[in-house]
Amino acid sequence: MHIAITGAAGFLGQRLVHQLLDRGALDGTAIRRLTLIDQAEPPAIEREGVEIRCLALDISSPGALDPVLDARPDVIYHLAAVVSSAAEADLDLGMRVNFDATRALLEGCRAQGLSATRLVMASSVAAYGGDLPEVLDDMTALHPQNSYGAQKAMSELLVNDYSRRGLVDGLVLRLPTIVIRPGRPNAAASSFASSILREPLNGEEAICPVPTDLDLFVMSPARVVEALIHGAEVPGEALGPFRAFMLPGITVSVAEMLEALHEVAGEEALARVRHEPDARIAAIVGSWPARFTNERARRLGFHGDKNFREIVEAFLDERA
Amino acid sequence: MHIAITGAAGFLGQRLVHQLLDRGALDGTAIRRLTLIDQAEPPAIEREGVEIRCLALDISSPGALDPVLDARPDVIYHLAAVVSSAAEADLDLGMRVNFDATRALLEGCRAQGLSATRLVMASSVAAYGGDLPEVLDDMTALHPQNSYGAQKAMSELLVNDYSRRGLVDGLVLRLPTIVIRPGRPNAAASSFASSILREPLNGEEAICPVPTDLDLFVMSPARVVEALIHGAEVPGEALGPFRAFMLPGITVSVAEMLEALHEVAGEEALARVRHEPDARIAAIVGSWPARFTNERARRLGFHGDKNFREIVEAFLDERA
Ligand SMILES: NC(=O)c1ccc[n+]([C@@H]2O[C@H](COP(=O)([O-])OP(=O)(O)OC[C@H]3O[C@@H](n4cnc5c(N)ncnc54)[C@H](O)[C@@H]3O)[C@@H](O)[C@H]2O)c1
Ligand SMILES: NC(=O)c1ccc[n+]([C@@H]2O[C@H](COP(=O)([O-])OP(=O)(O)OC[C@H]3O[C@@H](n4cnc5c(N)ncnc54)[C@H](O)[C@@H]3O)[C@@H](O)[C@H]2O)c1
Repeated sequence: MHIAITGAAGFLGQRLVHQLLDRGALDGTAIRRLTLIDQAEPPAIEREGVEIRCLALDISSPGALDPVLDARPDVIYHLAAVVSSAAEADLDLGMRVNFDATRALLEGCRAQGLSATRLVMASSVAAYGGDLPEVLDDMTALHPQNSYGAQKAMSELLVNDYSRRGLVDGLVLRLPTIVIRPGRPNAAASSFASSILREPLNGEEAICPVPTDLDLFVMSPARVVEALIHGAEVPGEALGPFRAFMLPGITVSVAEMLEALHEVAGEEALARVRHEPDARIAAIVGSWPARFTNERARRLGFHGDKNFREIVEAFLDERA
Repeated sequence: MHIAITGAAGFLGQRLVHQLLDRGALDGTAIRRLTLIDQAEPPAIEREGVEIRCLALDISSPGALDPVLDARPDVIYHLAAVVSSAAEADLDLGMRVNFDATRALLEGCRAQGLSATRLVMASSVAAYGGDLPEVLDDMTALHPQNSYGAQKAMSELLVNDYSRRGLVDGLVLRLPTIVIRPGRPNAAASSFASSILREPLNGEEAICPVPTDLDLFVMSPARVVEALIHGAEVPGEALGPFRAFMLPGITVSVAEMLEALHEVAGEEALARVRHEPDARIAAIVGSWPARFTNERARRLGFHGDKNFREIVEAFLDERA
């Protein structure tokens, strides 16, 4: 089993690499080879019996992935992307990395005849937008209100069409908001969703810019990585007529998130969250869909977190 | 008012050109200039007071549209496309004409700063597919099951994103099955829908390959052209968060179509239709959605045909 990963130096990429190596096998077959690709060379890692290559490649430059595809990987995880704010700030960059590079990857698979190679791509809840219903399902249209979401939605269509034509065996998973991300607060509008838990758990102050009755659709990093792995194992025949769908996150209000913080880390931790309403952030985050039926994903055996408390506890376990 | 039309030599393009010249104005402003573009030079036409240029251009070759966009048209109709069967037979050709050329057109508008130019593109009911509900609405997902539909759906996303960013003032109309098309039967699975009326009305035999209880979603050529014209006139602010939607066709069963033929042209005409079931055609056409609520389109003032009989009578009037 040879697995190639684009964006392997990123947050999810690194977690996926470690999880794959810990499992040692994918779809019942021992992992013998990993090809890790990112703009800057992904951190070196060694594991007995596994040939691991770390490559510094700009996947948006023509032919960059040719040597990787020449080696005919069995599974390709396509995680490299320009994030939402960067894609909004620079349309050309977003189109090149989030769309053209996906297309080039599909074309490369076609040229190499990799019809049996499972391609697992990450898409996003940001592909939804517009006049959304209260509860979204697998037939809710993608009307993205940002360029990142539009580029992901276009890539989904292409992965589906190439798969339908038998040129690759693709699958696109739309990810919920990931909570709790490690690290520092960043410019993303969703940054607070991790921050209001992570900082207090680390003994620091955090700001909550949204009303506590706001609902979010979230998934822990561990569950997302599990879903990526399951995404390589679920049979193509089971996927039905469209190879992109939303993963089963859980719907949780900010109040419930803070209640879980309270339960797990006490009054003191909760007191570290200051409420400073920010209308701009509240408006952006408030426009994100928070309820999904997730029928397709559940039928295919994808699982969400059980409850929010578990997400907080998992973060503490990992940190320990 | 300067109007440019790609695919101007095609079926809808030619009807649109004549309709525009007959009206003499668009959005209350006199038409002073028409630029007609197609692979082969569109048929010459003259009208006093209107500068009409016919250009033979392959819109998929780099920079082909630059001279047209340099002249800063007020309205662009983007009708050039590779049809469904050709796009399915040749993925590269379909991608190049149906998607890359749309992208190049949008990039050209961006480069010229044509933010106020209304771009009206034709998309298709073929962009829908998969596990569709009985009645589709404006939030039904596009899960195309053919490359033509995928390319149209990707183009829709791009037109929407460029419009959202204020780079152009775009709008995409998804067309129902057009009935009655003039001419001869062709290889399209939908060919019978015009054929079972047109041929008997012309005193010829026709074959009906589908069960008569099959429902279709149809629109007459005249109504489609009206919709294209209205599409240039409806204000951008009214379009809401996604600039693509289905036009209001009418739902009609094959039995109702044949009944209209009977009413308008008598027993003799009806007897010219032979029923020869073709499972392949029935399966393709049976997978097409036949019922839509069309809320967006109606709210924006787009109109469908009143009933099927009117469609048949309009065909006879035009032929006369
Ligand atoms: N909730 C969501 O919607 C959501 C959340 C997280 C991730 N995602 C998606 O999951 C994937 C991984 O996300 P992440 O959180 O690990 O992001 P990340 O930013 O940590 O990782 C992305 C990686 O892609 C790399 N990359 C960017 N451009 C590249 C190029 N031209 N060539 C090679 N590598 C390039 C970056 O260097 C980075 O390491 C992305 O596709 C992202 O869009 C979606
Ligand atoms: N029901 C439907 O879904 C439906 C029905 C009709 C039309 N449409 C769409 O409406 C539009 C017009 O359709 P039509 O029926 O008039 O089709 P048509 O085939 O008669 O016209 C299309 C024109 O585009 C031109 N063209 C193709 N490639 C070109 C290129 N590379 N450069 C320049 N010109 C090129 C062709 O020469 C042709 O004249 C198309 O975009 C079509 O996809 C959809």
